[in-house]
Parts: sequence; C-alpha cells; structure tokens
Amino acid sequence: MKLELYFGPGACSFVPHFGLEKIKAATGQDFEARTVKLHKGEQRAPEYLALNPNGQVPLLVVDGQPLTQIVAICDFLDRSFPKAGLLPTDAWARSKALSDLAWFNNTVHPTFTHFFMPFKFADDEASQASMKGKSVSQYRKLIERIQDMVKGGTPFLGGAEPNLLDAYALTLYRWGGMTGIDPASIPVLRDYVDQLAKHPAIAAALERERIPLHTYKPA
Amino acid sequence: MKLELYFGPGACSFVPHFGLEKIKAATGQDFEARTVKLHKGEQRAPEYLALNPNGQVPLLVVDGQPLTQIVAICDFLDRSFPKAGLLPTDAWARSKALSDLAWFNNTVHPTFTHFFMPFKFADDEASQASMKGKSVSQYRKLIERIQDMVKGGTPFLGGAEPNLLDAYALTLYRWGGMTGIDPASIPVLRDYVDQLAKHPAIAAALERERIPLHTYKPA
Repeated sequence: MKLELYFGPGACSFVPHFGLEKIKAATGQDFEARTVKLHKGEQRAPEYLALNPNGQVPLLVVDGQPLTQIVAICDFLDRSFPKAGLLPTDAWARSKALSDLAWFNNTVHPTFTHFFMPFKFADDEASQASMKGKSVSQYRKLIERIQDMVKGGTPFLGGAEPNLLDAYALTLYRWGGMTGIDPASIPVLRDYVDQLAKHPAIAAALERERIPLHTYKPA
Repeated sequence: MKLELYFGPGACSFVPHFGLEKIKAATGQDFEARTVKLHKGEQRAPEYLALNPNGQVPLLVVDGQPLTQIVAICDFLDRSFPKAGLLPTDAWARSKALSDLAWFNNTVHPTFTHFFMPFKFADDEASQASMKGKSVSQYRKLIERIQDMVKGGTPFLGGAEPNLLDAYALTLYRWGGMTGIDPASIPVLRDYVDQLAKHPAIAAALERERIPLHTYKPA
C-alpha cells in the first residue's frame, strides 16, 4: 500500500502523522510525508484543492486515492493496521475513543479556530476581537476537561502506549499555549505531555514537523 | 441489546433516529426514542448532563452505557447491525462515507450553528449579527456542494436505498430553509429530499419528530 500524508507543521495532521510513525514501527509499512505550508497558503493551490476541496490538512492519499477528515483517516489507519494499536481493540472501548476523537475535532479544535482564525467567522475587526476573547476562556475550560481525561489515563489515554487520542491531546495542549494558557496552571497535562514526547513515534513526528512541545510565552 | 436514543426534534439526532428505524425494519431490533426539548433547556438538566456532559443530542444509551457524538454513534450502529445498510460495506467506500459524515458534522453543521446560536461564539449583539450574516452566505455554498454530491447519487447518497448520509443531508436541507434558502434555487436537492421523505424509515422518523420537511418561509 502506498501512503502519502499531507500535513501542516503543528496542525491536527500531527495525529495521523504520529499514527503513521507508529504503524511503521509496528509493521514496517512506510509512508511519505508531504509538508503543506499553511502560512504560505499552499492548501489553496489548485493542485491541492483537486485532492481536498476543503483546502485543509490532514489529507491521506492511499494508492493514489484521497481521503480527508481526521476522524475518517484515523478510522481507516486503525482498521488497515490493527496491530499498530492506534485505537482500542474492544468494540465498545473503540466507539468511546472515536467519540472522544470526534469531540476533540468538532468542539475543542474549532474553539481554537475562533481564536486563531476569527476572520473565518466575521469580517469586521470588532466582531473578530469579541469572538477571540470569548474563545480564550472557552478553550481553557476544554483543556481542563482534557486534563481530567488524562488523570484517568494509565499513563496515557491509550493505556500503556499512546494512541491517536494522545497525539490529538498533545496538539490541543500546544495550541493552548498560544491562547495564553500557562502550563503551570495545568501541571498534570503538562507532565503528561512531557512523558508523551519521549515516545519514539511522537518524537519522530515532532522532529519532522520541527515544532516545539511548549508554546506558551509569558506576557 | 437495549437501545435508547435521546433526540431533539429537527436536530442532527435525526440521523441516528433514521438509522434506528432502518435497523428495526431490517433486523427487528427495537429502540426507545426519548425526546429532549432543546428549546426548554432539557439538555442542561443535571440528569441529562450526567449522561452527556456536552449537553447535546444525539445520545445513544446502549445497555445502560452512554455513547455521544454523531459520527461515533453512526459507526457503532453500522458495525452492530451490518445488515441494515447504514453505511457502505466496501471498506474504502465506507471510509469515504465516514469522511463525508465528518464534514457534514464539523463544517456544514457548525456553519448553521453560527446562524442559529451566534451567542455561543460572541456576547455582544453587533458581533452576533456580523457572524450570523457571514454564515448565511457560507451556508448556501455548502448546501450547493451537497446538491452537487446528490447529483452523483443513484438516486440516493447511499445508492438505491438511503443511508445515514442521506438522513444528514435532509437535516441540513431543512436548516437551509431557516437561513432563507429558497428551495426553488436548489431544485435538485429539493426534489431529492421529497423522494427521500417517502422512504419508510425517513417517514417514520419525520412523523415521530413531528417536523416539516420544508422550512422555508418567503420574506
């Protein structure tokens, strides 16, 4: 199988990026990693839009066929490589994990989008500032809920080994720093992320994306 | 298996509602339908929040255990009742359908939310009006993309028989009327929805929810 992942450094494409590194380590199945420079607008180039009309990452191309949407890509990778441990094997536990993935994707993620790209939702600067302000406090509450989830992990959301949920939690933690969440105010999540970063598949994806784990800068 | 669906009339919970009707017709597995009166705030009652901390519908309770998030619920129902034809059986076609479901859920659906509940994203009325105005034109473009998808259906997105994608498309069409999209301007989608409404499982869910198919009111 030929697998090509289009990713933006630091974007939620980090989740399948980790998944593919874990698949490679577990099964030997390799992949090609293709950088999409989001800040340069490469996701809006005609060649990219032909593969993904939404102009977003991640995009997984499987034997030449495009698959979009992080939840669908995660489901596909796990079904295709069940030995890689990307999601729980028990059917009910897997459904609960898919539910958490979907919540990260449709609730936590877009709350950050209102902070990071408010121009997507309103044209005038006053409205953008209003929305951005509200999203900061909403995002903190969601990050605190993720910290609560992590408190139940042993030690990871995936159990002894990190799975796709952990890679998403790490991504959302990184974004939290950009919204001004001081890691010292969420020490359990901070320590968990530090542990997570030592896992070979997480470390490999962080290194290829050349992104720092902690993004918080004191005002 | 005991299945209980918590739904809000006209909300996206229509999708698993249809799915459960189709399962019942195909396999005899019954379900209990529990109405959540969203306009009365029943989704924020402590008993409901204990089952779904997000205070949203749909919620599926399986033998007493709660499962949230429409994409996870759809995946669960299809995996549990493969004979009901809720999603394609071919693995790649199923992944593409999950991708479309996720796009409906994280892109089309929240664009409507910015129109319907702008107070979720900004506190002041001017910002809410600005956001609402922008969402109207964005929503129309998305509905036109769904009409394009329908043009490739034969006759439904699920093929000869409607599947979960069709139930979501119908829901998003209904919401379009509320944003002011005249059905006459999207005749292919309108005619498709009229055909869809004749399917027994769609008709049963519409009847229980007591909702009209067409919501557009000329100004």
